[in-house]
Amino acid sequence: MARETKAPSERTRVKRTNQRAVYDRDGINAILDAQPLCHIGYLRDGHPFVTPTFQWREGDRVYFHGSAASQALRASSNADICLTVSCLDGYVLARSGFHHSVNYRSVMILGKAEVVDDPEEKNTLLNNFIEGLWPGRVATLRPNNDQEIKATTVLSLPISEASAKVRDGNPVDDDEDYDLPIWAGVIPMRTVVGEPYDDGRLLDGVTVPDHVLKFGRS
Amino acid sequence: MARETKAPSERTRVKRTNQRAVYDRDGINAILDAQPLCHIGYLRDGHPFVTPTFQWREGDRVYFHGSAASQALRASSNADICLTVSCLDGYVLARSGFHHSVNYRSVMILGKAEVVDDPEEKNTLLNNFIEGLWPGRVATLRPNNDQEIKATTVLSLPISEASAKVRDGNPVDDDEDYDLPIWAGVIPMRTVVGEPYDDGRLLDGVTVPDHVLKFGRS
Repeated sequence: MARETKAPSERTRVKRTNQRAVYDRDGINAILDAQPLCHIGYLRDGHPFVTPTFQWREGDRVYFHGSAASQALRASSNADICLTVSCLDGYVLARSGFHHSVNYRSVMILGKAEVVDDPEEKNTLLNNFIEGLWPGRVATLRPNNDQEIKATTVLSLPISEASAKVRDGNPVDDDEDYDLPIWAGVIPMRTVVGEPYDDGRLLDGVTVPDHVLKFGRS
Repeated sequence: MARETKAPSERTRVKRTNQRAVYDRDGINAILDAQPLCHIGYLRDGHPFVTPTFQWREGDRVYFHGSAASQALRASSNADICLTVSCLDGYVLARSGFHHSVNYRSVMILGKAEVVDDPEEKNTLLNNFIEGLWPGRVATLRPNNDQEIKATTVLSLPISEASAKVRDGNPVDDDEDYDLPIWAGVIPMRTVVGEPYDDGRLLDGVTVPDHVLKFGRS
């Protein structure tokens, strides 16, 4: 498959350092699937707000959810928003302050966050979110009830107006600075999973399930 | 010192789960100082955008910077923005899907991002950012030149209209769900520093400096 090299819109076109731009869907999906944490940008009284939340992808859409009473969810419902996902992969230390940088992967999606109305669809989507993180967990849980589904807003955003940016590798210094006796390189960063602990209220015989033990290990 | 329990403005007041609200400056500063990665919300043509970047705090202000040619920096300059910092500390697994949650620390700062004009002040601030991450590094670097300082925009945001939210600890399940044989607890998450590597172009005798070896170890 040929890589998409053209931005879907002028406002998602990467203007600076455009050698870092990623417009093909596989590249965008890989970042979305690697990082559930996202930041939603929305307007309240004309002022931009940014709220962290979690996203999950199904096909050509990303979803996020929260309390129906949440200001962020209410302001995002059927409104134009920006959903940004970012992974910090490392600090890039150069021979001058100016050329210090970071290695990262990020995706920005613009569009209208559509409210999912149908309770059955909402329930399926919410279960998919949990299954995506911990395969097999939903079957072990007390199912969502009608009131809980009603109290939850699920928003759906098409991955149509989206672009990604990726930086990787070594610092890029000015030619003459390579003659200076300065350490330059990369300090890699990554997010790791700690040791799970239970809440001290498990019934006798309940053990740590595989979906918890395996989380983040693949 | 008494803890501040009142929000600085209606729009930074935490409305939902307000037992998680943090309004005192020490609590807010601790989160800002723990996490340089931030997400800036700004407007372009009336549409909200969210761009990841880095912040550093000096006293009652946070600063961020970027290329003077950056769309995000240009749109944020002397404009009302939202700067959000978030740390994901763990996934909270409950006995129902509904009560799944996350442990996190986040700060939201609203205000006008003021452009720092004075080249000397810009240079000092940019050096402070590097020193904050890697104490002692600036003295080892080729200094910034006038053109580099001119090509960099530094923005300053007062920490006046700010609030934080923190969740910690175990899941909170419905009373009757504690009788179910379901594993519930926390999967901690943290960001770790990997092994630094140089760019393969060091001069003979240049070794890894302490500020690199010690990064993230304190």
